[in-house]
Amino acid sequence: MQIFFRYNWMVREDWYRWCEELSEEELLQDRTGGMGSILHTLFHIVDVEWSWIRVLQGKTDFQESFDSYKNLNKVRKLDAEFHLEVENFVNNWDASMENQLFYDTLPDGRIVTDTWGEIMRHAIAHEIHHIGQLSIWARELGKKPVSANLIGRGLSSHLNK
Amino acid sequence: MQIFFRYNWMVREDWYRWCEELSEEELLQDRTGGMGSILHTLFHIVDVEWSWIRVLQGKTDFQESFDSYKNLNKVRKLDAEFHLEVENFVNNWDASMENQLFYDTLPDGRIVTDTWGEIMRHAIAHEIHHIGQLSIWARELGKKPVSANLIGRGLSSHLNK
Repeated sequence: MQIFFRYNWMVREDWYRWCEELSEEELLQDRTGGMGSILHTLFHIVDVEWSWIRVLQGKTDFQESFDSYKNLNKVRKLDAEFHLEVENFVNNWDASMENQLFYDTLPDGRIVTDTWGEIMRHAIAHEIHHIGQLSIWARELGKKPVSANLIGRGLSSHLNK
Repeated sequence: MQIFFRYNWMVREDWYRWCEELSEEELLQDRTGGMGSILHTLFHIVDVEWSWIRVLQGKTDFQESFDSYKNLNKVRKLDAEFHLEVENFVNNWDASMENQLFYDTLPDGRIVTDTWGEIMRHAIAHEIHHIGQLSIWARELGKKPVSANLIGRGLSSHLNK
């Protein structure tokens, strides 16, 4: 579980750096799909990751609108604030948490049950999916997207020995 | 590991069904990013998943070109052929395989080391990333993409009890 989160954090940081080469207008320009712009999609990734970690802990989640975060530095600052708590939760993840149950009340009032393991994987897949969307928009801008490779990033412990 | 693979297989099947509503022309039309068309991207997902599973087992990987698979049924048929071996390998995955080493020779001759665990996660992330690309093309076609949600698919064992 930790390896996937660390992968997402590295890729996200690569995208922030990639975004530094773009104008604010390009970052906010309306695009088809995803959250409708590059920066809003990155904001959404940060929001959703933190919110799931929060609700698993029985805490309130993030409810603020993107309207208050419409530049790259604001999104990075928000990410950095959230990251401490996210990283702490992820690093303390262990196999015993896998099958704990989370009861989620859907907008229509139905209550569904997910395991914590499903929710953690959901959060992981959520980010990778949205990053795939950014890669299309990058090509539409005529730019090379950040690599999505998981191998070659030194994520496995054998490289730290 | 198995849950992510099963997620990818379910989502891929959903996309095949989604593709049934499109003409062959739409499936093969040149698009920006990914593998350049919807069907080529699906073919690439199938190819790459199987090829990693093959090379981990020390077997030859898939070398055929997309040119021979330019319709939806051919790609689904290829996927079904490969799937038996992929599923068997994934279902027999256990924690002891996580840190086995794989020596990969890069195109430039350098040899890099990856753990099997990294490679399996690389294969998982690879598919999710490309599926994110399909979701943008779906919106560009004015169509609703397949859901990328991992929760709500009954992937965790508590639902099977």
